[in-house]
Amino acid sequence: MPLSDFAREAYKSVSTATLTTIMMKRGFRNVFIQKVVPTAPDHPPLVGEAFTLRYIPSREDLDPLSVFQDQSHPQRAAVEQIPPGHVLVMDCRGDSTVASAGSILVTRLMMRGAAGVVTDGGLRDSPEIAKLPFPTYFQCMSAPTNLIKHHALDINNPIGCGGVPVYPGDIIVGDGEGVVVIPAHLAEEVAVEALAQDRFEGWVTERVKEGRSILGLYPPDAATKAEYDAWVASQDSAKH
Amino acid sequence: MPLSDFAREAYKSVSTATLTTIMMKRGFRNVFIQKVVPTAPDHPPLVGEAFTLRYIPSREDLDPLSVFQDQSHPQRAAVEQIPPGHVLVMDCRGDSTVASAGSILVTRLMMRGAAGVVTDGGLRDSPEIAKLPFPTYFQCMSAPTNLIKHHALDINNPIGCGGVPVYPGDIIVGDGEGVVVIPAHLAEEVAVEALAQDRFEGWVTERVKEGRSILGLYPPDAATKAEYDAWVASQDSAKH
Amino acid sequence: MPLSDFAREAYKSVSTATLTTIMMKRGFRNVFIQKVVPTAPDHPPLVGEAFTLRYIPSREDLDPLSVFQDQSHPQRAAVEQIPPGHVLVMDCRGDSTVASAGSILVTRLMMRGAAGVVTDGGLRDSPEIAKLPFPTYFQCMSAPTNLIKHHALDINNPIGCGGVPVYPGDIIVGDGEGVVVIPAHLAEEVAVEALAQDRFEGWVTERVKEGRSILGLYPPDAATKAEYDAWVASQDSAKH
Amino acid sequence: MPLSDFAREAYKSVSTATLTTIMMKRGFRNVFIQKVVPTAPDHPPLVGEAFTLRYIPSREDLDPLSVFQDQSHPQRAAVEQIPPGHVLVMDCRGDSTVASAGSILVTRLMMRGAAGVVTDGGLRDSPEIAKLPFPTYFQCMSAPTNLIKHHALDINNPIGCGGVPVYPGDIIVGDGEGVVVIPAHLAEEVAVEALAQDRFEGWVTERVKEGRSILGLYPPDAATKAEYDAWVASQDSAKH
Amino acid sequence: MPLSDFAREAYKSVSTATLTTIMMKRGFRNVFIQKVVPTAPDHPPLVGEAFTLRYIPSREDLDPLSVFQDQSHPQRAAVEQIPPGHVLVMDCRGDSTVASAGSILVTRLMMRGAAGVVTDGGLRDSPEIAKLPFPTYFQCMSAPTNLIKHHALDINNPIGCGGVPVYPGDIIVGDGEGVVVIPAHLAEEVAVEALAQDRFEGWVTERVKEGRSILGLYPPDAATKAEYDAWVASQDSAKH
Amino acid sequence: MPLSDFAREAYKSVSTATLTTIMMKRGFRNVFIQKVVPTAPDHPPLVGEAFTLRYIPSREDLDPLSVFQDQSHPQRAAVEQIPPGHVLVMDCRGDSTVASAGSILVTRLMMRGAAGVVTDGGLRDSPEIAKLPFPTYFQCMSAPTNLIKHHALDINNPIGCGGVPVYPGDIIVGDGEGVVVIPAHLAEEVAVEALAQDRFEGWVTERVKEGRSILGLYPPDAATKAEYDAWVASQDSAKH
Repeated sequence: MPLSDFAREAYKSVSTATLTTIMMKRGFRNVFIQKVVPTAPDHPPLVGEAFTLRYIPSREDLDPLSVFQDQSHPQRAAVEQIPPGHVLVMDCRGDSTVASAGSILVTRLMMRGAAGVVTDGGLRDSPEIAKLPFPTYFQCMSAPTNLIKHHALDINNPIGCGGVPVYPGDIIVGDGEGVVVIPAHLAEEVAVEALAQDRFEGWVTERVKEGRSILGLYPPDAATKAEYDAWVASQDSAKH
Repeated sequence: MPLSDFAREAYKSVSTATLTTIMMKRGFRNVFIQKVVPTAPDHPPLVGEAFTLRYIPSREDLDPLSVFQDQSHPQRAAVEQIPPGHVLVMDCRGDSTVASAGSILVTRLMMRGAAGVVTDGGLRDSPEIAKLPFPTYFQCMSAPTNLIKHHALDINNPIGCGGVPVYPGDIIVGDGEGVVVIPAHLAEEVAVEALAQDRFEGWVTERVKEGRSILGLYPPDAATKAEYDAWVASQDSAKH
Repeated sequence: MPLSDFAREAYKSVSTATLTTIMMKRGFRNVFIQKVVPTAPDHPPLVGEAFTLRYIPSREDLDPLSVFQDQSHPQRAAVEQIPPGHVLVMDCRGDSTVASAGSILVTRLMMRGAAGVVTDGGLRDSPEIAKLPFPTYFQCMSAPTNLIKHHALDINNPIGCGGVPVYPGDIIVGDGEGVVVIPAHLAEEVAVEALAQDRFEGWVTERVKEGRSILGLYPPDAATKAEYDAWVASQDSAKH
Repeated sequence: MPLSDFAREAYKSVSTATLTTIMMKRGFRNVFIQKVVPTAPDHPPLVGEAFTLRYIPSREDLDPLSVFQDQSHPQRAAVEQIPPGHVLVMDCRGDSTVASAGSILVTRLMMRGAAGVVTDGGLRDSPEIAKLPFPTYFQCMSAPTNLIKHHALDINNPIGCGGVPVYPGDIIVGDGEGVVVIPAHLAEEVAVEALAQDRFEGWVTERVKEGRSILGLYPPDAATKAEYDAWVASQDSAKH
Repeated sequence: MPLSDFAREAYKSVSTATLTTIMMKRGFRNVFIQKVVPTAPDHPPLVGEAFTLRYIPSREDLDPLSVFQDQSHPQRAAVEQIPPGHVLVMDCRGDSTVASAGSILVTRLMMRGAAGVVTDGGLRDSPEIAKLPFPTYFQCMSAPTNLIKHHALDINNPIGCGGVPVYPGDIIVGDGEGVVVIPAHLAEEVAVEALAQDRFEGWVTERVKEGRSILGLYPPDAATKAEYDAWVASQDSAKH
Repeated sequence: MPLSDFAREAYKSVSTATLTTIMMKRGFRNVFIQKVVPTAPDHPPLVGEAFTLRYIPSREDLDPLSVFQDQSHPQRAAVEQIPPGHVLVMDCRGDSTVASAGSILVTRLMMRGAAGVVTDGGLRDSPEIAKLPFPTYFQCMSAPTNLIKHHALDINNPIGCGGVPVYPGDIIVGDGEGVVVIPAHLAEEVAVEALAQDRFEGWVTERVKEGRSILGLYPPDAATKAEYDAWVASQDSAKH
């Protein structure tokens, strides 16, 4: 079942911080991809289904530069096969001493309508990648070509990325802070709850900026809940 | 004895680099909080007395999300009890896989007149925190809620932060490079010496930009000292 | 044999990513200095011959602050002896808990005509250093004075920096991504090949932005090669 | 409520591996002290209530060698105050570059009737400590005196040790593999369940050694459960 | 093509050190599994074809303790399906905070005729495992059950283990120092060369113990080669 | 000035733990080589002057296996040139993914009368090395040949080893716990003081084993000092 338009839009406006809390309520404590950051702070938000690529360590006889002349090479195949709206998530075993992709492949992904790129390894040509209007996440800048350490093995099998399990089709959400993985079967309900939570936190932030104490406000006591509900009602009616 | 206004102002203009040198002269080699950086490069300088919060590893039965409904929870209590002008310094055991605070608490700290925040863990909602006109220092962006790894234990006991001992009341000074801890009893004399040293280094920098060698200049030989003293005298008399 | 003007100019326009690929073709898999980044993203490109400084761990009796009064101290000597156009490359054993240089020394290096600075340790006064129109690379900001951990031992001996061997006279090339080391005897031929490769990749990028698949394009098949050769010929003839 | 004699004996015979499984059934995923090993493989098993000592980073002016002349120094006080049957658990922030105790203090702890020692830092004189008939656990051998890095702060407050929360009175259990922390209020029921599980696993191991498949055996299907129950009944009746 | 009896026997007597040298001659620089050690120093040598098991990070909803009741669970399936003479090699992403197997499974592997076990994660019940007459290699002792961090995903796909690529059928060789991976197609020729090299090194060691210099001996100059060839001839003729 | 016979003997009987304390009294806080352990727990004690070998990262064109055919190669030269009674101390930049020496070279060092070997990298053939009656210290077992990562650069220059500065001629002392470096000019006085301290600690240990409290005993108050002095006097007179 594809992600609904409602949920896709919702994920563009909620924060990864809020999502980790919503997921913790459901018993998921490991959904934030560790040590992975946006290549630029002002990219559009990242939302899409996971399409995965797994690297294992390279071997000198199997991974010469000539392997890319094979058009079915998994890295190149991944770039040309990823469906629109999906996110290429790469498992580099957390090794960022070499790149997992460069600006040409990332540009091609953008042109093909992919939703973004997440790798727990490095990216090369990363200053150019950072300038693209396309959300990309990595561990760090890393010029060396991936064949020095990585062998692209297979596409769209479950992987680990930054310590988090990623199953093909999971919903990948990224903001200026990082990336969260939402299991596909929870994607709709988490979107709804996150949207509500972020709206509440926005209201709380305004109250705090007015000088109000967080005690009784965040988390809200009964009086605050009533106050907030009244505010929501007034806002929602104002829209009509 | 509270920090004098003179020292508080002085610390706003001196660099943490200079402070580490002044402290090394007194035999202190471990005053710079390691692996902790500003959330934004252009925040106002950080100066204030340390007010500490200690986290230990969380435990599933003691740290559900509902703990925050207790208004005496140490994290919330710390935010509401920190005196104006003080810096909230958090000991997260250097674990940044989860957050130690988020934008709502940090905004509240700013509104209450705290001088800033320093944590050797992560911060969540960090893009928002970075935009506040409020000096905040962390190890890295980290969306997950702190209860996943942290249990807030106690307030204003001595802690370690980034490998440095922090006693409540120590003077915390931060610039664009990081954070230094000055033991309270040394705060006045270190401020005086740092101000003098930074003034000298400013003069040296001008000379270097004019093309002068550092030999005999930095550190100064007798001739340079005389030259500098004359410059200082002329400057100071010019002020009157 | 000094680096030719042609090669020096060429290195200013090619990327470190391309250089790692050219070097891998020659069997060199370890040329990118690991964990070292530019102090600012928009510095001029770095090109120059390596001039090295080695630090070993400091010892309390040998490394008091007074050592800098000796004008032959290796750190100060390195700054005043580096030939114009050379890059000061420092081996800090990857220890960035203290600085390896500060803004006064770096400014002096710039004034003396050095080409830039690379250290696998920290830099202090790094916000000021980042603002200089001078390419500088480091592991991270680090305020503490280098004597706390480092003893400057000798100048212009072979070193390791960021895990890469650096021999005096090797060509050091840096861009917004990081730093690559080219053995001196390969410097001319690598420059030629890198320039050609970067020109090709620029053309490829334009094609990808037009919507073309990477299959057959990157790496190029015979048809693409012919197309590219024709483009090059037309471009080159247009210049005349 | 003190640990029952039954539970204390039970813990001496069960494995830490079994205890982690029993605890996971109750929702506790973080009970094994990480990176901490026995100083010798053949020590008696460790069982006792936690008595904690917390270290923060030392400071040159507060932690000269003369501090030990103060008989109320927390490290010395801990050694002389720990109740018989308790385990001294030390929080060294995982820093093993210096020692947290040496053979004289550990011998004194043994003589006073303590049950053992656990530290996530180093131990000095560790070859001697390893020879004592006394269970001790550490990160590694480390000769340097603790004052170089550690300041003993307080006794019997909650701490973290090897990433695990330890509250005074928690039950500390160690075998040849490492150390597990059992919250005090669960100690009796976990002991009962672990004893049963270890008995079952012993029976399983015998079956596996006879050549039986683990399928249906481990975990047991209904037939295996019946077979095991019959064996238990026969064994238990044989004792009477 | 199965490994010949000759090669299998040869690998039992050669050292992993020698094998890394033989492999480097062929251009393979990354064949030693890093950070993995024998569970006991005196186990029989390990030789066999790789049979792989891959773990990804676990997820709370997919990895409860009850998963083992499924007899097709990949971890249990691997144990029951591995062919005799093969080595179970597990990819734990280098995470040893939990176990990848325990004594019951390892005993079963031994009973089924497997050649040994290699994991870049932890093993639980490791003191018992170490006592088995069965070669086992791990990163460290680790009591926690693997489901806390690991999800067994698939069997006999290529993996990374300790930073080394392992393809099913590769020859795994272990001694008291660690484990080397030999690509299957090189297994016969490497065995021959390693046997010769180890014989030579044994002879060299005897000469060194007699007081001879290593210069001209190791590596051998022409005279030493002649001397050694004569010794070999005399030895071999003596056998007939 | 060579180390006196008295001091050489004294260092064989004192512990590295005691030496770190004696050195801290003189202001030296960094004398214990970190992350380096004995290859076997029961080797003879290590005492001797440092003879150093420095490795930098290897480069593919400069470090083929054939380099060892050059008899002046620094690694081989170091082995054949080290004076009797000296300790070969190797700076491997803490990289233990490959070996820094193997059993043939170590056996040759033993035969030539060297006092021992210390490396902050790996050793290959380490099970054989561990069996030699010769003190050797390393970070861990590591089969790969050193040329994969290391280039032996020069002999008997100052180095860092395990984070500690080592100057040629410094006194290297090792016991079952690890290795300490004593600057040459302090070697005689530290030996005297350490011998006295270890004698006192031996006496203290006996008292503790008799059940005495450490309070007033360790460190000693005036009464204990008098008691100890009387014991020393009685012991010493008994020898005459």
